Amino acid sequence: MSEAQHISDAPEQLAPEDLRDAWRVLDGAERVEGFRLLSLADGEEFFIQLPTGDQRELLASLTPSERRHWVRMLAPDDAADLLQGADEERRGELMALFDEPVRREVSALLAYAEDDAGGLMSPRFARVRPEQTVDEAILYLRRQAFDRLELIYYGYVLDRDQRLLGVVSFRDLFRARGTAAVRDVMKTDTITVPEEMDQESVGRIFAEHDLVALPVVDASGRMQGIVTVDDIVDVVQEEATEDIQKIGGSVALDAPYLEVGLLGMLKKRLGWLTVLFIAQMLTVVAMGYFQAKIETVSLLALFVPLIISSGGNSGSQASTLVIRAMSLGELRLADWKRVFLNELVTGLSLGAVLGVIGFVRIFALWPGTAPEFDVFSWGLAATILCSVIGVVLWGTMIGAMLPLVLRKLDLDPASASAPLVATLCDVTGILIYFMTASWWLSHVFESGGVP
Amino acid sequence: MSEAQHISDAPEQLAPEDLRDAWRVLDGAERVEGFRLLSLADGEEFFIQLPTGDQRELLASLTPSERRHWVRMLAPDDAADLLQGADEERRGELMALFDEPVRREVSALLAYAEDDAGGLMSPRFARVRPEQTVDEAILYLRRQAFDRLELIYYGYVLDRDQRLLGVVSFRDLFRARGTAAVRDVMKTDTITVPEEMDQESVGRIFAEHDLVALPVVDASGRMQGIVTVDDIVDVVQEEATEDIQKIGGSVALDAPYLEVGLLGMLKKRLGWLTVLFIAQMLTVVAMGYFQAKIETVSLLALFVPLIISSGGNSGSQASTLVIRAMSLGELRLADWKRVFLNELVTGLSLGAVLGVIGFVRIFALWPGTAPEFDVFSWGLAATILCSVIGVVLWGTMIGAMLPLVLRKLDLDPASASAPLVATLCDVTGILIYFMTASWWLSHVFESGGVP
Repeated sequence: MSEAQHISDAPEQLAPEDLRDAWRVLDGAERVEGFRLLSLADGEEFFIQLPTGDQRELLASLTPSERRHWVRMLAPDDAADLLQGADEERRGELMALFDEPVRREVSALLAYAEDDAGGLMSPRFARVRPEQTVDEAILYLRRQAFDRLELIYYGYVLDRDQRLLGVVSFRDLFRARGTAAVRDVMKTDTITVPEEMDQESVGRIFAEHDLVALPVVDASGRMQGIVTVDDIVDVVQEEATEDIQKIGGSVALDAPYLEVGLLGMLKKRLGWLTVLFIAQMLTVVAMGYFQAKIETVSLLALFVPLIISSGGNSGSQASTLVIRAMSLGELRLADWKRVFLNELVTGLSLGAVLGVIGFVRIFALWPGTAPEFDVFSWGLAATILCSVIGVVLWGTMIGAMLPLVLRKLDLDPASASAPLVATLCDVTGILIYFMTASWWLSHVFESGGVP
Repeated sequence: MSEAQHISDAPEQLAPEDLRDAWRVLDGAERVEGFRLLSLADGEEFFIQLPTGDQRELLASLTPSERRHWVRMLAPDDAADLLQGADEERRGELMALFDEPVRREVSALLAYAEDDAGGLMSPRFARVRPEQTVDEAILYLRRQAFDRLELIYYGYVLDRDQRLLGVVSFRDLFRARGTAAVRDVMKTDTITVPEEMDQESVGRIFAEHDLVALPVVDASGRMQGIVTVDDIVDVVQEEATEDIQKIGGSVALDAPYLEVGLLGMLKKRLGWLTVLFIAQMLTVVAMGYFQAKIETVSLLALFVPLIISSGGNSGSQASTLVIRAMSLGELRLADWKRVFLNELVTGLSLGAVLGVIGFVRIFALWPGTAPEFDVFSWGLAATILCSVIGVVLWGTMIGAMLPLVLRKLDLDPASASAPLVATLCDVTGILIYFMTASWWLSHVFESGGVP
């Protein structure tokens, strides 16, 4: 599209950047109004780049003929995404807007789960034949470019059964002699992914191999489509966002923060908080079990928050590190023994340092006890030392192992959120602390110390 | 490279996939040994795809002539990454391995910060001239492909001062008439990024616009290089990993989990845990302030962990949601008022639900108090209700606003980690709880209830 065309499309026009900047704060009607002020060319690019949810909303507010125009702009994989989230009735309406061949492509894509390689891929890739010469292949690709190909940086070399023989990049073609056969120029050590591979793994392969596109093949090696790296950036962002939101202890939001309404927000956040709150009631039971001790030595209660939170903090830390390492593929289930040993040593070391800080604090800073150094102070300090070591070690182990256990159970490791781990550590922390204190108390009374 | 060549390179050969799978568990010497068993062609691809740190280590163990060979395989931006992390002496040695023109390119790239657009970009992009015809441009690109161009999917149309006029994709060229002028085919509404833009923002632009490459221009509009989307996948992963690790309450690791040694791990994790532990000592002071109350009504101490953790949990949730929304560019500092109001309403609602659960629990399940319904039970239940509402509201507000405050202070919002927010909530939670309880206690005593 030329510069001249840009300017002459309509009498009053809006720059797409301006609409993009304002988009977040516009309501539905304003969005439609703004969108209609774009030139046709700008509108096309703007529409294609909108998030799927926004496309769906915008389409609903347009006239049928406008709707038809814009829907047909979409590549089949994007069209499939659009339909995936629509309700039954709306889906039928939208489907009717496509030409027969596109309808067939979109239907095929809809059969895949949205977050599989199959759900991400585009069926429109550039094909070449092994017996073509390089010059023929370039010409042939040039002709295919008239169709709406997703990306024509790679030509895929297929045999008559659509099996993938190899890949030629444009660079390969352009660097080769024009008379060479494609089969001699192509790369055969192609990395492919199966249709049902989940998108997180596909993202990992892209990140590891610095690829621009990956071919998707079915069980018999027939090429089905390509996943392009520009879709993968979104996938990687999305997967990280999901992990982060789960680690924070909520259900993953499915829209930008400011666009989730109050009710939606409560639905995502209340569930886990309620579960955690109810689980946390076990701390009341645990504390109740030691109520007699607290009545005898009320000082004991003062350290409960300090002790249990040191477990929660070290547990949150360990669980997030392990969750992320698993998401990045750095850690597999089979590595559990190494994680166990690593965290055992790390937890002991962390606990020892924090325990000593707590021990020193009792003597150096606790008003009143410092000058006395009686059996009571010693006992209290020793209790803090031992229980911090125990609680931090325990928290670290729980935090590190829980994500692995969840993966083993085919659940999402990211559900081992910081608040969940902290809650688990609180209950056990209370037990560890008071059991240590009880041992010391009975010792004090036996030896005739002053409680 | 042909299939035949693959097989005939060396007598004993290793498949690159096998080496890739085993890589993680091999030590330095085994890695070198394995790498030498690859065919030359496989070795090239394998080396290029290795993480920079591994490349550096591998190179150190190779002979000077091998080192020279492999270093020269690298694109200038990857070579710059390699040098960036090396010490002064090693950097000079590696620099000496390059040809003069490459050395100049690499030096120019080294001047940029590693996580700027300039540090990410490759100076090797495909240029075309506005007055060329489409056929000429295709031929011209074909000739440029012999150089090691980073990606030749786009041709960049530059004027004589290297200023960017527009961009033509291969698809545009292939679809246009061969005799049309490039200037009439090119797109002029090109998105460019300045050299000093940070990589997180560059990643966001890629994700928003589904691009394959972005041109980097200097202050006067001269094109300096391109950032390609395959590098961006890594950037997006890295930035998310950093955020996640910080949210979990540790310093971001700079290597995969299993490759960080014990000392390294302790260095990353101990710092925050110590800070939090010392901050958490304030809870002892806060509890000490109410020790007399605990001595009078030891039952009060039983609910401390429940109350304070409900604040920590809701705070962790709010802070992670806000941190992620800011990282994704969904939330800006200017939105703070909306966040404040949203979280005020959300926090009140969450607190109300949890408070009512706590209230009901006291009556329905607390052994012994249920049948009595005396003023004491009522007071305790009311205390739980009010303090849970207060603590959850407070935790939510702290969690949501702290990342914004950190950004305002030019600090990383992700430092508002779950454990930090939980710790802040613990201290204030104790104050809120005991102040509510005190009010109720004095009330009970006045009205002659039975404590």
